Amino acid sequence: MEFFKILHKYKKSRIAEINTPHGTVTTPIFMPVGTQATVKIMTPQDLEEMNIKIILSNTYHLYLRPGIDIIERAGGLHKFMAWKGAILTDSGGFQIFSMEDLRKITPEGVLFRAHFDGTEHFLPPEKVVDIQNRLGSDIMMCLDECPPYPAERGYIDNSLNLTLEWAKRAKLAHKNTDRQALFGIIQGGVYRDLREKSAEEMVKMDFPGYAIGGVSVGEGKDLMYSVMDWVGPLMPENKPRYLMGIGAPEDLWHAVENGMDMFDCVLPTRIARNGTVYTSRGRIILRNSEYKEDFTPIEVGCGCYACKNFTKAYIRHLFNVHEILGMRLTTLHNIYFMIRLCGVIKNSIENGNFEKEKEKFLANFEI
Amino acid sequence: MEFFKILHKYKKSRIAEINTPHGTVTTPIFMPVGTQATVKIMTPQDLEEMNIKIILSNTYHLYLRPGIDIIERAGGLHKFMAWKGAILTDSGGFQIFSMEDLRKITPEGVLFRAHFDGTEHFLPPEKVVDIQNRLGSDIMMCLDECPPYPAERGYIDNSLNLTLEWAKRAKLAHKNTDRQALFGIIQGGVYRDLREKSAEEMVKMDFPGYAIGGVSVGEGKDLMYSVMDWVGPLMPENKPRYLMGIGAPEDLWHAVENGMDMFDCVLPTRIARNGTVYTSRGRIILRNSEYKEDFTPIEVGCGCYACKNFTKAYIRHLFNVHEILGMRLTTLHNIYFMIRLCGVIKNSIENGNFEKEKEKFLANFEI
Repeated sequence: MEFFKILHKYKKSRIAEINTPHGTVTTPIFMPVGTQATVKIMTPQDLEEMNIKIILSNTYHLYLRPGIDIIERAGGLHKFMAWKGAILTDSGGFQIFSMEDLRKITPEGVLFRAHFDGTEHFLPPEKVVDIQNRLGSDIMMCLDECPPYPAERGYIDNSLNLTLEWAKRAKLAHKNTDRQALFGIIQGGVYRDLREKSAEEMVKMDFPGYAIGGVSVGEGKDLMYSVMDWVGPLMPENKPRYLMGIGAPEDLWHAVENGMDMFDCVLPTRIARNGTVYTSRGRIILRNSEYKEDFTPIEVGCGCYACKNFTKAYIRHLFNVHEILGMRLTTLHNIYFMIRLCGVIKNSIENGNFEKEKEKFLANFEI
Repeated sequence: MEFFKILHKYKKSRIAEINTPHGTVTTPIFMPVGTQATVKIMTPQDLEEMNIKIILSNTYHLYLRPGIDIIERAGGLHKFMAWKGAILTDSGGFQIFSMEDLRKITPEGVLFRAHFDGTEHFLPPEKVVDIQNRLGSDIMMCLDECPPYPAERGYIDNSLNLTLEWAKRAKLAHKNTDRQALFGIIQGGVYRDLREKSAEEMVKMDFPGYAIGGVSVGEGKDLMYSVMDWVGPLMPENKPRYLMGIGAPEDLWHAVENGMDMFDCVLPTRIARNGTVYTSRGRIILRNSEYKEDFTPIEVGCGCYACKNFTKAYIRHLFNVHEILGMRLTTLHNIYFMIRLCGVIKNSIENGNFEKEKEKFLANFEI
């Protein structure tokens, strides 16, 4: 079975299948984030009932806690967390490089202190691959340097060269090419020629898929859209394209329009835990007093368990009295919203009315 | 249909049916506590899947937040929280009287300040009934004075007289006798004659069910068992008997042996949120390092979702990294454990081997 198969195209957008040892994922797809081997508050059953086929987890976090030995002895990450679908593991590059005071980058790898206990760890790119081989994720990511924004051109140039070098070493270290797909990450900040150089060099290494990294680091939406515009055409047509860390509803439309296939973002679940939910008209903050006696669901017609059973007034009450069920229901709703949005986008590609549907969505959805 | 029907007896123990407008409850039954219109972290679906038929909620909490008007406009408590089964609402007596510095008792009722914002409220027994009429719970409780332990005989005597007087007034105020059963509460502290007096007077008032209140206030298990022993024989055979606030697994056996039918307790769900779970061998603390690499379920053979899917090592990891799913799974397990225990007790009544089964359970279950 082919790893990646395009089923339908409309201009630059596409519907495709990614075939993994843990099932087939249809793209465009939003992957819920399960950083610490759990999509926060959700059970695997909750996710399965929403027809979710792939989730994301994080090498960095799992390496530190519970530790790879434990997950390996449990029979791998899927078994450990009882998730039967596909898993993409992020390398942890983004997390490590966010901790500016706690890490040091050398050509050999990255030295850092754990965010919770200060213990020192050294991760060369080979070890990041080895960890992911042992986790048994279906899609693995190379260790990259994720530079801050803003950063000078010279810094970005050096950084992307290091990321390219590390990608080469990661590829050589990868043991399970038969069952785990290792993706390369394109960097280059907001410099068009550097993004192009990164993409061209990365593509030469022939990875089974490519990601755009280093976006959503504060550069703003216009620059983020520009990066896709520059890099998208250089990414192979016949391989999955993963836009890392992006997943606001409005961004999904822009990204798919630019040929992207895969997305992840903590935003939908993070705002949910704060009482904010997505509707077709935009975000609403359930804590607001206007919902005190609103006996309608978060969104009329939404098929999620929260909307089929509960009113805004009830969920607002739960948040008001600090009951966890509130966060559970909003998390469920926001994930469902993202998955349903992927369905709407897919249909618009199939029906060839992408622009119209995009316009309709964005006209209603207040950002 | 009779409100209460005994199906099977063994010595003082009995299996019975309580028929409510929201379904039939078979006793002996442990009622999960949903103080603020939610059994913490659980959805109604979770509870239904465990075959739970009745839960408890709290008049005092709901009166303060979200307020009775909102619940009434939502169509009643069942609709508000999307719970199709039966609901028993506690009067809030226990909660109000726990706040020693914030309340004042008068013959008219109780004056108190809300625990979270200091607003002042006056609740006469009539109002407590009216609130419960408006909530629409299936079983309502009279407002009682729940005296502290220890307390002097004179104090307890006055207190139980007040509770009797309030019960009379509550009964008169009750509007929906056709569809809501109002229970009287027997007080009297640890004084046998006062307990007997309270029981006799309360029974004269002919409530459809009776509760023993003012236990589990620090008097110790032996005194608590004595209270049941004194009062049980004075409680009508043909009406449900509810032992309030009791629900440790070992206590259930003693209470059923003394003819009790209904129980509630925050303990199973509270300890769950702290990472402690029940097994047939007693409590275990999942945070302990001994479970770090324990790849067996909380209890082998347990049919709950947590045990069918996850290991101790995984749930320990969740607690270790502060993931809410941990609390969700342990809560589910402990509720399931209590419900399954009720099933074991029921079978032992049916099979006439109650003592043997009780002994077997207590021999294994380390307290």
